[in-house]
Amino acid sequence: MNSVSKLNLSSARPLGQRRPLGVVGGMGSLATAKFLESLARKHRAEKDQNHIPFVALSLPDICDRSQAISEGSDAPLRQILERARWLEQAGCGAIAIPCNTAHFWVGEIKQALSIDLIDVTEITAKKILDMRNDDIRDLRSILLGTSATMLHSLYPQTDEECFGEDFVRFSKGLQREAIQIIADVKSGKVVKARAKLGQLIHQIRSFAPDVIILGCSELSAISGDLADDSDIIDPISLLAEGCIEWWRKENELVTQTLAGGE
Amino acid sequence: MNSVSKLNLSSARPLGQRRPLGVVGGMGSLATAKFLESLARKHRAEKDQNHIPFVALSLPDICDRSQAISEGSDAPLRQILERARWLEQAGCGAIAIPCNTAHFWVGEIKQALSIDLIDVTEITAKKILDMRNDDIRDLRSILLGTSATMLHSLYPQTDEECFGEDFVRFSKGLQREAIQIIADVKSGKVVKARAKLGQLIHQIRSFAPDVIILGCSELSAISGDLADDSDIIDPISLLAEGCIEWWRKENELVTQTLAGGE
Repeated sequence: MNSVSKLNLSSARPLGQRRPLGVVGGMGSLATAKFLESLARKHRAEKDQNHIPFVALSLPDICDRSQAISEGSDAPLRQILERARWLEQAGCGAIAIPCNTAHFWVGEIKQALSIDLIDVTEITAKKILDMRNDDIRDLRSILLGTSATMLHSLYPQTDEECFGEDFVRFSKGLQREAIQIIADVKSGKVVKARAKLGQLIHQIRSFAPDVIILGCSELSAISGDLADDSDIIDPISLLAEGCIEWWRKENELVTQTLAGGE
Repeated sequence: MNSVSKLNLSSARPLGQRRPLGVVGGMGSLATAKFLESLARKHRAEKDQNHIPFVALSLPDICDRSQAISEGSDAPLRQILERARWLEQAGCGAIAIPCNTAHFWVGEIKQALSIDLIDVTEITAKKILDMRNDDIRDLRSILLGTSATMLHSLYPQTDEECFGEDFVRFSKGLQREAIQIIADVKSGKVVKARAKLGQLIHQIRSFAPDVIILGCSELSAISGDLADDSDIIDPISLLAEGCIEWWRKENELVTQTLAGGE
């Protein structure tokens, strides 16, 4: 079923005006809400009217991303593109997708759009690189996420070996546990999932990584205060910051255009 | 500036199919995100694909509702209608507005739409009426909200006198404090606002009301565990339940239509 075909749009829209952010949501729905919360909190607008305008299209009947990737199917890509193109045609100025796994197809998505995709994997990789430059020479990272995210290394992953033999043994269970926590969040078992994530992070820290990457938006959605810890990298929170930066530039551009007499 | 004129739509859409929920957001932006979180949490879907589809149109440059009401202006109504009609034309099946004060114009909004407005004031009033029927004969309620919400009694309010002279003296400061907390949330001072709301609720409870109504979506957005207390009425949480109920009925209707061979 193509849900987007049921939504209507017309043709062109005037240029040179402030365009809202387009959000492809529903992967999952709680994660979308938490991303929008992060966008509102981090923007620090003084009043309602100064917040970032957005259109969030959350038609969640998108095939399971991890399953499709494991089966070599690109069915989710087609559905994600339908939604992104709908937002583009609606007049959005950039697209954000608060789902890490969906960025497995980041190249195809960018290629299919005439507006920017604010790329959570690019922003997160840059953040990790900056940390490395700052003070840590060989940054040791541990990634939590869906099977596809962990298997296809959407984010910089350190060789398991460097954490020792105990970690290599532990890592198999670690992946299973992360996938279970994500499934718990998707099925509404948020309190249980948050407790399990806390325990898992505690276990992981015994291997003294420099950073732990919450590489699934469901983990970001339940991270709470954890995300404030200096060793936690929350890509969805970084995506919100990237969107705020895009909005700042978009406004500068529009202000210059208007000053130019357009 | 009419932000909606910059967003595009075309004409008809096929009938007899599941239509997403339309959300008029941005009043305020954090409240919109918290409403969507409540919608995702309360729906208890087993997987991403079973969550409620929605289009959230959050163009926050809507005039201040309380100020307009105090000046006898309907400028916000025109902007809210533009957004609601855009969602209607996009093919949404019902409209939800996670802002209590906006419901000052609930009659005009319902009249202007051919689809349902899921009315937070109606749902909340029914909830309070049910509580009264259940076990409390003369239910004593205290309403917190914007100046307009409190002044124009969007929700059942008990005569101040019944709480005694001390409360009548206290109530003036109570209104000022509620309005300040709301302003703090809108300007991103969430931690400060949450602490102040907790203190205010504690003071209010000394007057032993049966229910305290969080009659502004910014208060709902920061209520956290408070909303679980039996004496707290959270209209935005009730609005999410109303939307879930609408979606259940919408699906039954579609299933019947499809079974009917359409």
